[in-house]
Parts: sequence; structure tokens; C-alpha cells
Amino acid sequence: MSQFINARDAIVAEAVDGLVRVSGGRLARLDGFPNIKVVVRADWDRRKVALVSGGGSGHEPSHAGFVGAGMLTAAVCGEVFASPSVDAVLAGILAVTGDAGCLLIVKNYTGDRLNFGLAAERARALGRKVSMVVVDDDIALPDLPQARGLAGTLFVHKIAGALAEEGADLDTVTEAAGRVIAATVSIGMSLDTCTVPGSPKENRIPSGKAELGLGIHGEPGVEQVDYAHARGAIEAIMAKLAPFVPDRPHVLLLNNLGGTSALEMSVLAYEITRSALSGRIAHIVGPAAMMTSLDMRGFSLSLLPATEADLRALAKPVALVAWPGLALVGEPQRVAMPEGLLPPKARPSENRAARVVVDTVCEALVRATADLNALDAKSGDGDTGSTLSGAARALAAGLDDLPLDDLPALLAGIGVTLSQVMGGSSGVLLAIFFAAAGDAASRGAGLQPALQAGLRRMQQIGGAQLGDRTMVDALSPALDALGPGVERAAAAARQGAAATASMTRARSGRASYVGAERLLGNVDPGAEAVARVFEALARRQAG
Amino acid sequence: MSQFINARDAIVAEAVDGLVRVSGGRLARLDGFPNIKVVVRADWDRRKVALVSGGGSGHEPSHAGFVGAGMLTAAVCGEVFASPSVDAVLAGILAVTGDAGCLLIVKNYTGDRLNFGLAAERARALGRKVSMVVVDDDIALPDLPQARGLAGTLFVHKIAGALAEEGADLDTVTEAAGRVIAATVSIGMSLDTCTVPGSPKENRIPSGKAELGLGIHGEPGVEQVDYAHARGAIEAIMAKLAPFVPDRPHVLLLNNLGGTSALEMSVLAYEITRSALSGRIAHIVGPAAMMTSLDMRGFSLSLLPATEADLRALAKPVALVAWPGLALVGEPQRVAMPEGLLPPKARPSENRAARVVVDTVCEALVRATADLNALDAKSGDGDTGSTLSGAARALAAGLDDLPLDDLPALLAGIGVTLSQVMGGSSGVLLAIFFAAAGDAASRGAGLQPALQAGLRRMQQIGGAQLGDRTMVDALSPALDALGPGVERAAAAARQGAAATASMTRARSGRASYVGAERLLGNVDPGAEAVARVFEALARRQAG
Repeated sequence: MSQFINARDAIVAEAVDGLVRVSGGRLARLDGFPNIKVVVRADWDRRKVALVSGGGSGHEPSHAGFVGAGMLTAAVCGEVFASPSVDAVLAGILAVTGDAGCLLIVKNYTGDRLNFGLAAERARALGRKVSMVVVDDDIALPDLPQARGLAGTLFVHKIAGALAEEGADLDTVTEAAGRVIAATVSIGMSLDTCTVPGSPKENRIPSGKAELGLGIHGEPGVEQVDYAHARGAIEAIMAKLAPFVPDRPHVLLLNNLGGTSALEMSVLAYEITRSALSGRIAHIVGPAAMMTSLDMRGFSLSLLPATEADLRALAKPVALVAWPGLALVGEPQRVAMPEGLLPPKARPSENRAARVVVDTVCEALVRATADLNALDAKSGDGDTGSTLSGAARALAAGLDDLPLDDLPALLAGIGVTLSQVMGGSSGVLLAIFFAAAGDAASRGAGLQPALQAGLRRMQQIGGAQLGDRTMVDALSPALDALGPGVERAAAAARQGAAATASMTRARSGRASYVGAERLLGNVDPGAEAVARVFEALARRQAG
Repeated sequence: MSQFINARDAIVAEAVDGLVRVSGGRLARLDGFPNIKVVVRADWDRRKVALVSGGGSGHEPSHAGFVGAGMLTAAVCGEVFASPSVDAVLAGILAVTGDAGCLLIVKNYTGDRLNFGLAAERARALGRKVSMVVVDDDIALPDLPQARGLAGTLFVHKIAGALAEEGADLDTVTEAAGRVIAATVSIGMSLDTCTVPGSPKENRIPSGKAELGLGIHGEPGVEQVDYAHARGAIEAIMAKLAPFVPDRPHVLLLNNLGGTSALEMSVLAYEITRSALSGRIAHIVGPAAMMTSLDMRGFSLSLLPATEADLRALAKPVALVAWPGLALVGEPQRVAMPEGLLPPKARPSENRAARVVVDTVCEALVRATADLNALDAKSGDGDTGSTLSGAARALAAGLDDLPLDDLPALLAGIGVTLSQVMGGSSGVLLAIFFAAAGDAASRGAGLQPALQAGLRRMQQIGGAQLGDRTMVDALSPALDALGPGVERAAAAARQGAAATASMTRARSGRASYVGAERLLGNVDPGAEAVARVFEALARRQAG
């Protein structure tokens, strides 16, 4: 599997550089780049408590994507799935820490804990006030005292970030972070392993299985469980979470581990709102990719029984694309369906001349069935004749229900009938032709300009131009030549239809997929149908 | 490949329902659900021009994710990659269109064009003012008059949306939309096909190849090109775009087609800023997943030579998570590396007693090398003795450079030396122990409380508790028993070390991965090292 990267050892440096370049000046990076990859707020003045997080890369948008007012002050980025060095963390701390001090938010992985821990000691030795919290929200291995840090980290970033931005002191921010960590539980599930850049992909999870209780570094989940559908996945996860979730309102963070489509994430959101624990989920953050495991096709849920203060902090707007905000979960609001979806049926009326015209057209199309099918077979699937004659028969059968004496209503009514009885693109296009003609007639246009308006709209929607080898090549000259008599129009239609036999460049419609050699010498069946119709009308008028 | 879905024919209905439920009341849906899937702004009062878009699903967050003040008024959602019905589009139009009228924004696919087109006619027949624009930004097939609609659609949504929100009339909004469409060019590239729900995945693109010029419905790209790295991909794309991109400032929209990791998207952003056309790219929207093709591992670029008015419209904030905002592209801002990364070297000084202690400890560790390695081999990789003796030798060799007569500085200095010469977790943990002890001593703590403070910090960072079968089991009782004499401490250390032989449940460190039967009866090598050190100190004191 190829990836959009260059050299493996340049990935993180290039990604960090790219991120800073397109941040619109919001972000800066330390000058120790590319060895020391630290992203900091460009507008930071050290007056408030600084929040520093980070760790291995591959969890984007964490952590650099959350650097900004109201969340992180700096993100220290290691290589993919590898902790940053002590020096890098120390550089990050020293770059942003003023008199108010600094809180390190670290996920519970040995490398991160040690390197951030030693950097904190060094910073303290240099006189900086530094505290550190370790996020261990994973409940997949309840017996392991060293639970991993997962996407629950985002709760800590946001709540501590809001407090720090408000000017709270280091002890207050640290205490709040610790409280959120103690209360947050998370668990993840995946249907596929992630693709670590430069390494062959491990296809560990067979079809029909899911891994439950996984970390965010591609390591295997605690167990492989049967997987059938999204509903079962959410049921299994909720059963794992239930013992840790008291019966009070929680905020749910629904995290995309990277490779799950947005469509699937919304299906998961749907299942969550109808799950066993839905009654305890009052608010949601997401669905969104916040703490990913590269391109892992999975998700994680994090639950926090938030206090009123937590909710205020989570709801506080931040100008960070990566933070999806806090939303209430509820029944879907509904808007009543509008009236008028079924077109009003006009009152039937009689008009002898109109009846003759419609009858003649329908009869001509029915008679041409075999010829049109044969023509169509040369460049398409041979059903133009059948399609048109079917519509013609239905129209003729419903003649008595049409408002024959009311031109605008008649045109509109024919359009409605065609849209109901004639399938495919051609049915919709003819329906548009008659509907737009009826619309123009209702604004006072006579028959010829009304039909021309219909043609224009049909061309606009269908895209066919003159010369594109469609019915337009016959219909357009015919309508232009339409006068009190139909004879000139019929001649123009025939001439236009005949010309399609030498048009080899179909640019629209089905014939556009057919080679020139198969088109040459054959008239387009749609244009032929138009010519037949006008010729029949001319004969009737003459007779 | 499993996906997080339930029944195939329920995906879009469930996803739309999920989206509306977690929208915090911002969105509503039409009551014709689930047959008619139309998502509308819950706060819409029909006073301004309505913007309606939509099409097949599978492009999330398009289109429902862009419904909100300043962008779309309604999104009409078809099934995956299938146009919504004429009735659904008409319902959407009628539900949101007031006297100011409605603009339909349609991507150039036959089904969408026809169904939106006919719905527009019907709405006009019902007296609604409706205009329609067709987005055809794809330049992959320059000779095809019916260019496809790609992510450039987002420019139209945002610019027309900002105008409509400001109260512009339908003609003004339609004209702006048409102008943006005419000026926008897009092209996409992918490394893998997308997974259509319920269909087997087509593995069309071999490794080492990319498809260039693809649509957003999984159809093959115009050509398969060699793929080596992100740089080459951006070069190939820029070469395709160049003929369409005049030499003036453009806005670039960098769209994730769904399955590209955020890390890769940032690498692509980096390459774009150093590409042949970078001089013509002044602003960027993204990188973000805006117009996806399910989980396609690809991206698309759209370029618009934006006017000042366009820039203002694009920059206008909207409360939509899916819209990443407009940012200036520029050189990365840099922040100078902080001073103090290298710990200040304390001035060497002499203290006979301190020298004897350090010497004794180092000697004891070197003497214990083989024994400690042998113990470690029973539960680990057998290098505890070598690791500790290496560090001891380095410390002893540097004795003359240490501030032996300044306890806080001495402890801190030992910590720095250990972090430099001793690899692995144990090196960092011991460095933290001595750094924290030095920190405590510098605040006035005596030797015993200083060392105890170091131990607490080491435990906090390392996570080891008493009984976890680590060096803590010897070190903690030894420090507690430390007095003017070392004898009691040595006895306590030995007792603590001996006890580890019956600890079968290692919960921290490497032995936590080893079965109980291999641990039983063997002393932990770290604890043994501590006991040897204190015993050596006791012997030296006694002698």
C-alpha cells in the first residue's frame, strides 16, 4: 500500500512544517527543527499557565492540531509512534513557561512518561514551576495498573485549556486535569490494522472479526470478537463501559481512529443514541478524528461524568478546526413535509385541435417503434422506440383527463405524465422540456416561444448542444421554423435529423461512449423521432 | 473488509438520523424520512435566499455537514453514490424557499442534473423563484464538455452562502456562484479504490501506481501513473493544473478524499508550498475531508483565483466543524530555541565522605555485574548488571568533575550523568530519582528526605508500587531506615530484595510480561542491586 509520504524519516518533520505553513500564522515552531519538533502558539505571551502535551506522531490532529488559545500552548512531536526526546520536551517547556508555570499532559505510555518526567525535573532544576498529569483512561485491561492513555486526553486538553485561558493558577489547572483523568473512561474497537509508514501492513484482523480494547499504536486489541454490524459493535462496547459509567449524565467523545468513513461514524453515532447507555449520554463531542492511530479503521468512545464547570469549559468556543465542539444529544427535530409535492391536477377540458395534435404525435411514435429501436441498436441498447412508444401510449390513453383547452396547463400536464411513465434520462429531459414550456406559456408566451423556452431549459440541464448528435439537432431547427403551418418545421426537422448521420462526435448522451465508426451513416434515433413527429403533423395538417 | 454499518439499504437513513441527533438542535430533517432524506437548518426563517445542494451520499461531510448559517440551507441526500429522487429535491426546495427564492447547487453528474433540474421546474410551476448552477470544476478530461463536479463545489457553497447570509438577492447569489464555478479548476489523485458498502472492494490500483484525474464515485481515474512519493504526486498534479492557473494569487482547497491519514495530508500541504505553482497560492482551505469518496485514500486540489470579495466571503467565520476556514500560506514562523537546554555544569569541589560513598556504590555495582546479569536472564534479557556497571564506571571516571561538596548540585549532577550514559527506561528513571532528590535538597531537605522525594517522583513517573517486584521494593525500605548509620538501611534493603523472590505478580517494568512460574524463587535484579549497594556502604562504614 503506497502512502502520500516521501522518505520515511522525514515524514513528521515535513508534516509539522506543512502544518505550520498553512496555519495562517497561528502556529510557530521552535528553531531546533527538524531534530526538535515543537509547535507553539504564535501569539503566546507566557502570562498564563502553559499547557504542553505531545508524544509520538501518528495521532493527528493530536497534538499539534490542538495548539491554540483555549487548548494547548505547545505540542512536542516525536517520530511516528515514538516518544520525543527529553531535550525536545524540555525545549517545549522552556519555550512557553512563564511565571504562571506549566502543566504537562502525558498519555500513559512508558516512553512518554519517562521523557516528559525527566524533562519536567530538568525544568524544575532551572526554576520553572512544572506539574504533570498522566492520562490513563483505557478500561480494556481493568487489572492492569498502567492503563493506557486514549482519546479521553481531549477532555483534559479542553477543560484544562479553558481554565488556563481564563487565568486559573497552576494548582487549579492541575487539580482539574487530575479530576477529569480520574473520571474518564475510554475503549476502542477496530476492523483493520493501521498502516505504519515504511512498514508492510499487518493484516491481523480477519473479516468478520473486530479487535476490542486497543491502544493507539497499532498494537493488538485485548480480544478479537465476532463482528456482524455497527449495532453489535456498539452493544459490545457499551457492555464493557457499563460497569464504569454511573447513572448520571455524561459527555461522550466519539473519536475516529483515522480510517473510518464519515458515513460510518454517523451510523455509529446513531447506534450510540439508541444503545443501552444512551440515557446516560447527555452531550457529545464528535464524531471526529481527534486522537487517531494513523489510518486505523476504528473508533473509540470516551465518557466523562462532567460537572457544570466541565460542561462550560467544554462548550467554550475555540478557533481550532480539530475541536468539533460540544453538542446536546437529542431526538431529531422534524420539519413538516411541504405541501404541493404532488402537482395539482388541472381540470380536464376539450380542444379539438389540441387533441388532434397530441393524438397525431402519439400515433407517429407508436408507428415508429421498430425503426427507432433498430437505429438505437446501432449505437445504444436499442430501446428508444419502445421507450417513446410506451410513453406515447400512456399519454394517448389519458387524453380525456388532460386540460386540452388550457395551453400552459396542457404542457405542464404532459410533463407530469412523462415524468411518471417514462424512465431514464430521456424521460426526465422531456418532462423538463414540457414543464419549462408550460411555465413560459403561463407567463404569456405563445406556443413557439414556449416550446423554445422548454428546449433551452432542456439543453441547459441535459447539456446537449447543436451538433452533439441528439434530438436537439432536429428539434431546435424545427421549432425555429415553426409558424402557422408545420410543413417548414417538418422539413427542418428532417434536415436536422439527416445531418446527425454525419456527426461522429457525440458529446452528450449515451452515444458519447461509442466510437465514431459505429455512428457514421446512422441517424440519431432521438432526432429521427422528432422528424417523424413533425412529418406526421405536417401530413395531418395538409390532409 | 467489514464496515461500521448495519443493513446496506439503511446506511444513509441511519447516518442522517445520527447526524441530526448529535447536531445539538442545529439541524432538523424533513418528515418524509426515511424515503425523503432532507437535512435543513433548524433556525431557518425563509427570509433570505435559500441554498440547496445534495446528491448521492458517500461524500460526507458533504452535503449535510455544510448545512448551517453562512453555507447551505438544506441538503438533499440520495443513497450512496445515487442521486436523490425528484420528489426529494422538490421537498427540499419547497421546505426552505421563501419569497427571496432558492439557488440549487448541483455537481455535474447526469442523475443530479436531471433530478434537480426537473424538481426546479416543478418548484417554478408552484410559483417559487428557483435558479440552478452546475459545478464542473474537474480538468482531468479537458476535451469532455461535461466536466465532473468535484470539491470545488465547496468554494461555491461558501461564497454563495456568505452572500445569501448577508441578504443578497437571488440574481446576485446566482451570478456569484456561476462566476466561481467558471473560475474554479480541480483534479484528484488516489492510491487505492474506495470501499462501497455492501460491495466487494475492487483492488484496481497496483502498488507503485496512482490514479490521476478521478471522480468522487469510485470510478477509475483518467490515467494510472507511476507513484513513488508525495513530492512526485504533487508535481504531476501541478503539471496538470498549470495550463488552467493564471499567474495571480489563488485560493487552494486541499481536500482529503476520505482515507488519507492526517499525517499524509500535512506532508501534501508541505509539498504544495514548495511546488511549481506555490507562488500562485496565497491562501488555503484545508487540508480537510470536505468532499470525500467514502474511504478513498486520495486527495484533490481545487484552485480559485479569488477576488477580494471572494476572500472576504471565504474568510467569514461559520459555526460548521466541516468547514476548515481560510488561512494565509506562508513561511513557517520560528521561535528561538530556549536557553538552558544543557544543564549548567556545577563547579567541581571536593568532599572526602561523598567521594567515598560514590566510589563505594560504583565499585559494588561493577563487582555485581555477572550476578545481576544472571538474575535478569531469568525474567528479562540479562543485561541489568552490564547496564548498571557501565553507568557506574562512567560516574566513577567523572568523579573529579562533580561538585562533591554541594549536595543539591551533586545529586543533580549524578542525574545528568546517568541520563547521558545509561540507556533505557532504567536510565531515565534513575536520572529522575537523582534530579528530584537534588531539587528537594536545593530547597533545604536533608539527604534522607531528599532521596525519599526522589523515590516518590520516580514512582510517580515509573508507576511502580511496593510489591511490584522492582528496585523500589529494596530502595523504599532502605531509605526509610536510613539514619546516621547505613547498617539498618542495608538490612532493610536486603529484606526487601529477598521478598521479591516470592512476588509473582510483576505489575510494572519488563517482568510484567513474564509468567509467574519463571519469577518465583528469583530475586528482582534491580532490588538485588540496591541491596548490594547498601550492604557495600554498610561494610565500608563499619570498616
